[in-house]
Amino acid sequence: MKFIDTWLRKEIHDIQAYHVPSSINMIKLDAMESPFLAPRELMPAYIECLSEAALNRYPDANAKEVQQTLRSLMDIPDELDILLGNGSDELIQLMSLACETGDTVLGVEPSFVMYEMIAKFTRVNYHGVLLDENYQINLNTTIDEINRIKPKIIFIAYPNNPTGNSFNREAIRTIIKESDGLVVIDEAYYAYCKDSFLDEVVNYPNLALLRTVSKIGFAGLRLGLLIANKDTVRELDKLRLPYNINTLTQASANFLLKEKSHILENARVIINERERLFKELMKISSIAVYPSEANFLLIKVDDAAALFTSLKESRILVKSFAKHPQLINCIRVTVGKPEENIQFFDHLKSYYG
Amino acid sequence: MKFIDTWLRKEIHDIQAYHVPSSINMIKLDAMESPFLAPRELMPAYIECLSEAALNRYPDANAKEVQQTLRSLMDIPDELDILLGNGSDELIQLMSLACETGDTVLGVEPSFVMYEMIAKFTRVNYHGVLLDENYQINLNTTIDEINRIKPKIIFIAYPNNPTGNSFNREAIRTIIKESDGLVVIDEAYYAYCKDSFLDEVVNYPNLALLRTVSKIGFAGLRLGLLIANKDTVRELDKLRLPYNINTLTQASANFLLKEKSHILENARVIINERERLFKELMKISSIAVYPSEANFLLIKVDDAAALFTSLKESRILVKSFAKHPQLINCIRVTVGKPEENIQFFDHLKSYYG
Repeated sequence: MKFIDTWLRKEIHDIQAYHVPSSINMIKLDAMESPFLAPRELMPAYIECLSEAALNRYPDANAKEVQQTLRSLMDIPDELDILLGNGSDELIQLMSLACETGDTVLGVEPSFVMYEMIAKFTRVNYHGVLLDENYQINLNTTIDEINRIKPKIIFIAYPNNPTGNSFNREAIRTIIKESDGLVVIDEAYYAYCKDSFLDEVVNYPNLALLRTVSKIGFAGLRLGLLIANKDTVRELDKLRLPYNINTLTQASANFLLKEKSHILENARVIINERERLFKELMKISSIAVYPSEANFLLIKVDDAAALFTSLKESRILVKSFAKHPQLINCIRVTVGKPEENIQFFDHLKSYYG
Repeated sequence: MKFIDTWLRKEIHDIQAYHVPSSINMIKLDAMESPFLAPRELMPAYIECLSEAALNRYPDANAKEVQQTLRSLMDIPDELDILLGNGSDELIQLMSLACETGDTVLGVEPSFVMYEMIAKFTRVNYHGVLLDENYQINLNTTIDEINRIKPKIIFIAYPNNPTGNSFNREAIRTIIKESDGLVVIDEAYYAYCKDSFLDEVVNYPNLALLRTVSKIGFAGLRLGLLIANKDTVRELDKLRLPYNINTLTQASANFLLKEKSHILENARVIINERERLFKELMKISSIAVYPSEANFLLIKVDDAAALFTSLKESRILVKSFAKHPQLINCIRVTVGKPEENIQFFDHLKSYYG
C-alpha cells in the first residue's frame, strides 16, 4: 500500500476527484457565468492600471479599497463590514474552520454542493434537510432538525442553486430566530433576484450574507465576500490567511467593479433573457420548467442524460443531474447571450419535435 | 456578550489580529520580497496577454499550463507532480486539513510562524522543537520527539526563516527516514540557496517540497506549489478548492515565469548583494550577523527595538523580533537593491558610530 493511502484520512481518500468537462469551442451554459465581458472602451485604461501593479510586492493584506468598491457596487450599509475571500468557497471553508470538530453544519437539499464538501474537508459534520416537492423549505422539519442537531452553521442559498427559486422569506426569518448558530444566506445570484436579506443583517447578530462577483461577469477574478455585523467580521478575520486576495484581482476589482451601471444593465439583459427563455420552454409540452430568480433555469425532461449528450454533440454545454435523487432527469442551463439562448432553445424544439 | 464571542471557538477568539505595518514611501526590507520588477521591454506583450483574459469565465480549474511553466522554471522532474496553491499558506492549510483532528504537526523553532498558526486554524495540535544555539536541528531531541509524538506532518523550512541558514542535510535525511508522517521541506528561498531536496523527493514517498514565486519577484501573484510524488499529489488534490488560482495569476505566471534567465540573473544579483552586505555588517563590532542562504540576513544587536525605530524614522522598514525568546534583539533585513542595501548599511554604520 502506498504511503499516501495509509497517511490520508479516509473521508478524503474516498472522494472521487471532481471532473471539470472540457468546454473548448463550446457554448458554455454550464457554470452560471455571465456571458458579458467588460466594455471594450474601458480596456486601455484598465490595462494601464494593471501594468502599474508592483507584482514583486505582496498585495494589500486587507484590500481596503476593494471593500469600498464592493460596498458601493452592492449598496452595503455602513453598519456592516466585509470579509473578502478567494471566491466564496474560501469563506465557506473559513466559517467551517471557525467551528469545533464535532460541530454540525446544516444545509437544505438540493443546494450548492460545496457546503457539504467543505464540511468534509474541514472535519465538521454535515446534515442535509430535504426541500419539499416544490423545492421550498420544509419549515416544520427544518426547525425540528435545528432543535435536535443544534447546527453551528446553517447555509441557505437565496436564490437556491441548482433549483433557481428563492425560499419563502418568512421561513428563513423563522430559521434565523430559532437558531443558536450562524445562519449564512448565500446570495451568489443577488443580481438576478428582486429580493435580498442585506437590509436585515443589522437586525440579527447570527446572520451573515455571502456574495460573489463570479455570476456578474468576473468569475475569473475569484472574489467572494462575507457581509456581516462588525464584531462578526472582526473575529472571523482572524482565520483569514494573509494576502488571500492577489494584487491583480485587487487592481481589477477596483477598476472594473466601479462600472456599476454597466453591471446592472448586463443583469437586466440576463433577467429579460431568462423570462423569454422561460416562456419559450413552457411551450414545449415534454419539459417542466421551474421558475427562477437566478441566471439559470432548471428544467425536467424525460431523459436528461440523452438530452445532455445531444446538446453536447451540438457543442452546447449544460449541467445534467440525470441521477441525483432530488433532481432526477433535471438539466440546469445558464442564461447566456440572446443568440446562445436561441441556439439552446432551437435545439430543444427540434429535439422534442 | 456578543453572539460571535460565544459562537467562535476560543483558540481563534484569543488570537490577536495580525498587524501589517504601513510601508508607504518606505524602503521595504521587511517581507523577503524581490526588489525587481519584470523587465520593462516585456510589458507590452504581457499587457496584451492580460487583456485577452476572459474574466467572465471561471479559471482553468487545474491550471495545467501553469504547472508546466513551473516545471520548466524550477527543473521539476517528470516523475513528480505539482499541486498549486493561492500562496504556500493555502497548501500548508490543505495538508493540515488532510490530518485528523487530534493529529500533531511538528515544527522546529524559530521558523515560519504560519505552520503553527495554520495548525490552530485547522484544529490540529502543534508541537515545536527548539533549534540549538546555532539555529541548527537538535537531531537527537528531534528524533526523540518524533518517536514520542508521532507527528502527522513535520515542517522544515530549508533555508530556514527567519534564521537564514540551511539545516544539516544528513539530519533532515534522518528525520525523513525515521518519520512515519509526511515531511514537508519548505524551499521558499530555493533561488538563493545552492542546495535543494528536489532530487530526493522521488526516493522518499513521505517527502514533499513547498515552493513559491513570492521571493523571486512575484509576491503579488499569490502562487505557491507543492512538489511531491504523483500518488501524493493525486490524493491531496481532492482537498483543493476548485478554481483556487485565478485567471490573471495564471496568465501572468504563464507569461512572466517563462523569463527563466532573467529570474536567475535577479537571484544572482541578490546573492552577491547578500554576500557584500554580510561582509560589511561583519565589520560593525556591535552586531552579530548570521550566515544566510536566503534573500535576507538575521542580525543580533544590543537593542533591536531601538534600532528598528531609528531605521523606521529614516523610512527603512525591517522586521524586529525584539522580544521573541529564541531571537532576542534580532532584526531580519531583506536584501534589496544595491542602493537600498547601502542606505541600510550606512544607517547602521552611523547608528553604531
